[in-house]
Amino acid sequence: MSKRPLILLTNDDGMTAPGLRALVDAVSSLGEIIVVAPDTPQSGKGHAITIEEPLRIHEVNVFDGIVAYECSGTPVDCVKLAKNVLLKERQPDICLSGINHGSNASINIIYSGTLSAAMEASLEGIDSIGFSLLDYSFSANFQDCLPYVTDIVRHVLENPLECTKLLNVNIPVGQIKGVKICRQAEARWVEEFQEGSDPRGEKYYWLTGRFESLDQGPDADVTALQNGYISIVPSMHDLTHYQALDSLRSLEKIELNRVSEI
Amino acid sequence: MSKRPLILLTNDDGMTAPGLRALVDAVSSLGEIIVVAPDTPQSGKGHAITIEEPLRIHEVNVFDGIVAYECSGTPVDCVKLAKNVLLKERQPDICLSGINHGSNASINIIYSGTLSAAMEASLEGIDSIGFSLLDYSFSANFQDCLPYVTDIVRHVLENPLECTKLLNVNIPVGQIKGVKICRQAEARWVEEFQEGSDPRGEKYYWLTGRFESLDQGPDADVTALQNGYISIVPSMHDLTHYQALDSLRSLEKIELNRVSEI
Repeated sequence: MSKRPLILLTNDDGMTAPGLRALVDAVSSLGEIIVVAPDTPQSGKGHAITIEEPLRIHEVNVFDGIVAYECSGTPVDCVKLAKNVLLKERQPDICLSGINHGSNASINIIYSGTLSAAMEASLEGIDSIGFSLLDYSFSANFQDCLPYVTDIVRHVLENPLECTKLLNVNIPVGQIKGVKICRQAEARWVEEFQEGSDPRGEKYYWLTGRFESLDQGPDADVTALQNGYISIVPSMHDLTHYQALDSLRSLEKIELNRVSEI
Repeated sequence: MSKRPLILLTNDDGMTAPGLRALVDAVSSLGEIIVVAPDTPQSGKGHAITIEEPLRIHEVNVFDGIVAYECSGTPVDCVKLAKNVLLKERQPDICLSGINHGSNASINIIYSGTLSAAMEASLEGIDSIGFSLLDYSFSANFQDCLPYVTDIVRHVLENPLECTKLLNVNIPVGQIKGVKICRQAEARWVEEFQEGSDPRGEKYYWLTGRFESLDQGPDADVTALQNGYISIVPSMHDLTHYQALDSLRSLEKIELNRVSEI
């Protein structure tokens, strides 16, 4: 690459999250960096976009020598604003989202603002990677994984993605044994709502739950993580269940039945 | 089915949206209905969930003789509350979401609160259908399509879904020619932000854009809709790009390279 690559960084934990700072540290030597991140925590916002109200952008001085803008919307809004307002003249060579505080392996991808931001960039043809560390705490230790993050980004910059434009990278805590290319594990959240009363005596429900893997396949991301490997799942936005197409053909006869009833 | 089926209804346009009322009208003869819908419009909320704050539920009298609860959260929150709080004793036989005011064909599925609500129910093993009419206006005419909606729901109640648990049903405006089982078309949003100044003189950006289909395939949902057919896309939550797995194996060598560098 003759020119230094332009690297767009975003996340869903917000501009001040230590995971974003860790990501800046991991990749600032690899190219020209621009950070466009939410001004508030946006965990669990999935692929939400803001259409009912206007958005704001402010340039902020948060990372030494790095251009950074905070936005009032969701992670996906940040990517849309980056592409259509801030980076109109030059498309990023890569979009990195994270490092998320907490797992986005398996089914978590569909709830994740981190991965949705990366997916949004991938829809624009930009190689995109969502990074997540399996530690939800604000004070998670990102240091040990940074050399891997650097290596993965360098590898993708040197070998642009072909079949897929989106990688979902999850990183275990503790000793890292290596990297595995995986499929998304089958899993679910077993949920309950904590019930309580607010100061006015009104009842409320607050979401809580635990992750339950339903999949011990050796090629599943959850398995790789359990075994101490970084999991990389090539991901996509086509949700068609191709194997199910033929099982539904009888629905095409509905119209005929209706006509014959008349 | 010996017992009358329990039908959970939700949407993303909110409890008072005409599309939800149309859906109630279409299916109220098919079983026992419970409506659990957002108390405010939630278009474009994707698979967002509310984790930073508590949720509220209120029973409301909106549909004559139909049990209905409005919730303070997103469409996915509504389904989680329905399952874990309101319907703890008896799981719904089917979950219907919509009828959305506007298309959720093609790439729209990933931004859609309507489809995300249905997907959330499908994750719980419940047959789920998202319905959308290709008319964004509040005063859209839902009447012409209601017999089809009734037929599709009756068909799925009589023939439970097998391979997939989630159908994305989009309905064209005007004369309906029939029903086609389709794949999700490849498409994108070409976007721009309308810039303006608020009453305090602060700059804002407001999302706008137009849908651009990149896919004329005869089996694509957008094509079926253009030709006057209802499109039904079997959909899923596994975002793995299986064809891309092998192209990424070189990333697994990163660790070896790192070790050899040391």
